[in-house]
Amino acid sequence: MRLRNIPGSRDVIAESEYVVREANATEGGKSLGDGWAVKGRWSEVFGNDHPIRIEIGMGKGQFLMELARRNPDINYVGIEKFSSVLLRAIQKEEVMELPNVRFIRMEAEYICDVFAAGEVDRIYLNFSDPWPKDKHAKRRLPSRQFLAKYDRILKKDGVVEFKTDNKELFEFALEEVPEAGWRIKACTFDLHSDAELCRDNIMTEYEEKFSSQGQPIYKYIIER
Amino acid sequence: MRLRNIPGSRDVIAESEYVVREANATEGGKSLGDGWAVKGRWSEVFGNDHPIRIEIGMGKGQFLMELARRNPDINYVGIEKFSSVLLRAIQKEEVMELPNVRFIRMEAEYICDVFAAGEVDRIYLNFSDPWPKDKHAKRRLPSRQFLAKYDRILKKDGVVEFKTDNKELFEFALEEVPEAGWRIKACTFDLHSDAELCRDNIMTEYEEKFSSQGQPIYKYIIER
Repeated sequence: MRLRNIPGSRDVIAESEYVVREANATEGGKSLGDGWAVKGRWSEVFGNDHPIRIEIGMGKGQFLMELARRNPDINYVGIEKFSSVLLRAIQKEEVMELPNVRFIRMEAEYICDVFAAGEVDRIYLNFSDPWPKDKHAKRRLPSRQFLAKYDRILKKDGVVEFKTDNKELFEFALEEVPEAGWRIKACTFDLHSDAELCRDNIMTEYEEKFSSQGQPIYKYIIER
Repeated sequence: MRLRNIPGSRDVIAESEYVVREANATEGGKSLGDGWAVKGRWSEVFGNDHPIRIEIGMGKGQFLMELARRNPDINYVGIEKFSSVLLRAIQKEEVMELPNVRFIRMEAEYICDVFAAGEVDRIYLNFSDPWPKDKHAKRRLPSRQFLAKYDRILKKDGVVEFKTDNKELFEFALEEVPEAGWRIKACTFDLHSDAELCRDNIMTEYEEKFSSQGQPIYKYIIER
């Protein structure tokens, strides 16, 4: 996606009731304290004990919000590092008024500062940045380094679902699974021709574009 | 494996009671007619209606014979194109005297001449020749061309199990799955660290050698 600096996007984000903020965070007028005060307290943020599922690198949020619309008894947290992109998600969210969605603007590497051990039910990674240079392998979201972080925040039986149109990134991701001590629960090299895995598939903006061009979409679900 | 021409191997094969032959085939002294008379008549060959599982490119037969030893109620047919290699299997077989094993010396491409539609329960491919040149892709045993053949001889719910130490071949194989209209039922990039998939694993001669050198073994199970 083309990234433009949208003037005022940081201000909109700072004011949105859907965005959980780092310092002096408040929710419903109640102070959550300094730093990532939400860690271990997500049930307070949402006001219920529903499972919490997160998308890292959610982009404009189409995927996450459709999930949230279909599953009102599950809470969703979307994580995005770019303000200009997050802004688009907030604008959608405000239109849809989903009570079970929150956003965080942050780098994925700090994920363990935001979620306590076992606090997350499922992690979605969609069309993540491939970081094609070898020296940047650890920045790729399905890398063994990130899997180690996911291992900490995921509850027992929690899974990571990853899809991409990038074959090299997918092959890298598959190789990282056993290296990190995880295992492949499901896997396809053409999501849209796999009836079982595609049954409840929600397309991201990227996915709609690439698959309409005949590009296969790769997907795995992994577990520890 | 080093292939040597072993003088007399064709004669030994011609005389072995474990080898099903092409022309004027006999089994238990009974003529099965000309050509691949066994096609559609494997229950007569074995004298029972047990499921029939086959290994294409069985090498010296360690894997197949251990399977047969563990599962006396399943019939196994090993297919190997090289006489000198098949000879080694026969020599093992004669020592083990397994009633539920037969061998065929043939090229894999003629598989549909030997098994009728739905006659096979499961197909094993172990450490198949990678045929590294692109122009030879269709000779690779997990290619879409071979999957189309397997589709014909496998019964409903039949599966193909493939393992290899060759990452390029495995990645090729994974991509062929949806192209051929199949789906991945299970998959690992490190068989020996995957407790579930490795539970009943039987190592081939190749596998013992490569895995002892720290080389990961890749495996999938696919279904239609």
